[in-house]
Amino acid sequence: MTRLDLSRRTLMAGAGALAAASSLDLPFGIAPAHAQGAPVNQNPGFYRYKVGDITVTAINDGFARRPLEGFVRNAELADVKKAMEQAYLPSDALSITFTTLAIQAGGKLTLIDTGNGDSGAPTSGAWQKNFRAAGFDPKDVSSVVFSHFHGDHINGFRLKDGTAMFPNAEVMVPAAEWAFWMDDAKMNAAPDAMKGAFAGVRRVFGPVAKDVKQFEAGKEILPGITAVAAPGHTPGHTVFAVASGSGKLMIMSDTTNHPALFVRNPDWSAVFDMDGPQAAATRRKLLDMVSAEKMQVAFYHAPFPATGHIAKDGNGFELVPVQWSSAI
Amino acid sequence: MTRLDLSRRTLMAGAGALAAASSLDLPFGIAPAHAQGAPVNQNPGFYRYKVGDITVTAINDGFARRPLEGFVRNAELADVKKAMEQAYLPSDALSITFTTLAIQAGGKLTLIDTGNGDSGAPTSGAWQKNFRAAGFDPKDVSSVVFSHFHGDHINGFRLKDGTAMFPNAEVMVPAAEWAFWMDDAKMNAAPDAMKGAFAGVRRVFGPVAKDVKQFEAGKEILPGITAVAAPGHTPGHTVFAVASGSGKLMIMSDTTNHPALFVRNPDWSAVFDMDGPQAAATRRKLLDMVSAEKMQVAFYHAPFPATGHIAKDGNGFELVPVQWSSAI
Repeated sequence: MTRLDLSRRTLMAGAGALAAASSLDLPFGIAPAHAQGAPVNQNPGFYRYKVGDITVTAINDGFARRPLEGFVRNAELADVKKAMEQAYLPSDALSITFTTLAIQAGGKLTLIDTGNGDSGAPTSGAWQKNFRAAGFDPKDVSSVVFSHFHGDHINGFRLKDGTAMFPNAEVMVPAAEWAFWMDDAKMNAAPDAMKGAFAGVRRVFGPVAKDVKQFEAGKEILPGITAVAAPGHTPGHTVFAVASGSGKLMIMSDTTNHPALFVRNPDWSAVFDMDGPQAAATRRKLLDMVSAEKMQVAFYHAPFPATGHIAKDGNGFELVPVQWSSAI
Repeated sequence: MTRLDLSRRTLMAGAGALAAASSLDLPFGIAPAHAQGAPVNQNPGFYRYKVGDITVTAINDGFARRPLEGFVRNAELADVKKAMEQAYLPSDALSITFTTLAIQAGGKLTLIDTGNGDSGAPTSGAWQKNFRAAGFDPKDVSSVVFSHFHGDHINGFRLKDGTAMFPNAEVMVPAAEWAFWMDDAKMNAAPDAMKGAFAGVRRVFGPVAKDVKQFEAGKEILPGITAVAAPGHTPGHTVFAVASGSGKLMIMSDTTNHPALFVRNPDWSAVFDMDGPQAAATRRKLLDMVSAEKMQVAFYHAPFPATGHIAKDGNGFELVPVQWSSAI
């Protein structure tokens, strides 16, 4: 049964069935105008591209909306709204999208981050459906690599009921990130607002803690994938340089949140940056580097398919999306 | 059977079966590295968005590559290559993509243009597969509206063996376009290089000529869809203003070819513009208008999903793609 058929059946069954269905089964954006048998499915959120011999598949996990008020720590709201308008985005709220990467290299399947699982906003949680639409099965994942331990990156590794999503995968984490979040003294000293994040890390990784492989930045952690320290967003926040033949990709992780705000204005700090000044210094250094080297980049929070190049533009930068190709 | 399964089976069957399969059944970009059961499918080329109550679905028909040499009539090759490099595109060849629109309004399904059918480059011809992936069936099409009569817009209406693709659709064409291409005197007076285009128009429309509805520019031709004359690319080249509630979309058709060249440099003329100076005047007028009104636009030859907004940039413009949304 196709997704479209499912949607139709769900719609026929009426509002009660709609309310009962899980968010993983529901297409987004159901509106009364659609309830006449007309297609309602959006395109599944995956997109393939090559980096040399390596195949990268961007897997989208939907989005979360948040008000602009208070989102940028060190900018006036009017300036933030102006940046949104200049990008032809709504100035009332920001849709933050989530795009993980699946990397096929040397017969192995590696994930970089895992999305929100069933712990995120109702408009997220589409990861597994999109991963399967791309032809993958979670049991085929060889390695799961984490860029950092915020919930929107790690919660897809373990559902709320405790289910491990990737039974056959090794788990690879930045040593600096593990050291910070698994330190009970740091948890006890953290402000109350951060205690949930510490608890979440323990919920996700606790059952596999003894098997987790910690990696150091500056090392090739898997064939073609080198970890690069990018601290500030979190203490152990990591980006990844992917190389194969002449192909290169810099996986920028959360070096920026939405590019219309933070690629354009690299000195702005999002509230999610744990150390704002350090994050801004890291951001400018990495954007300068990928811009100078004309490297293809991928961002976790850029609009899907979340890959392109970085051009210098005044005192900031601009993300130029790749041209979508029907060929791989 | 899913497309992925088909691909796998095709691959298993070996090179002979590959060569024998039709271009409509084949995913693009098959490479030996994939022939180990790993997924090879690219995301199906459709994308949905709303314009007020109207649902628009962009349907991609793949692409055609052509050398840059001789493509821009009135610019130096070095300047054309520089524009490509500034857009992070290859400077050896241009991939021209094809994206038609399916419009759901008032219970009717209208197409704007039909793609290459089985008459285009081997990297095109994906339209029907993508249209079906979007949940549509060709027999459900109520109206087919043509922007102009170039082969990449009309050949999808009738396959090479004569099969009509949309048995239940009315056919709507710009009166000025019909008058030009169906005029035997114009065909006889045309240079040899253009005679094939005249013959192609007759092949596609001949069998339905008596039923074709000709429309005049400046009229609302279907609920919410108004034809706007945009001559130059061809004599009857037409763009379409779509309006529903506060939602507006300008379907720019071939007002520009690739935006990295002709939105950026609106005075450049592609070899496909039949009247270069008139096409350039039309292009600048329309780009000025949609830029000033901040209207959402769709282009036939912009990178998929081929919709965004037009920002002024120096003496030219820039296409800012919409943010991809998993919600409709």
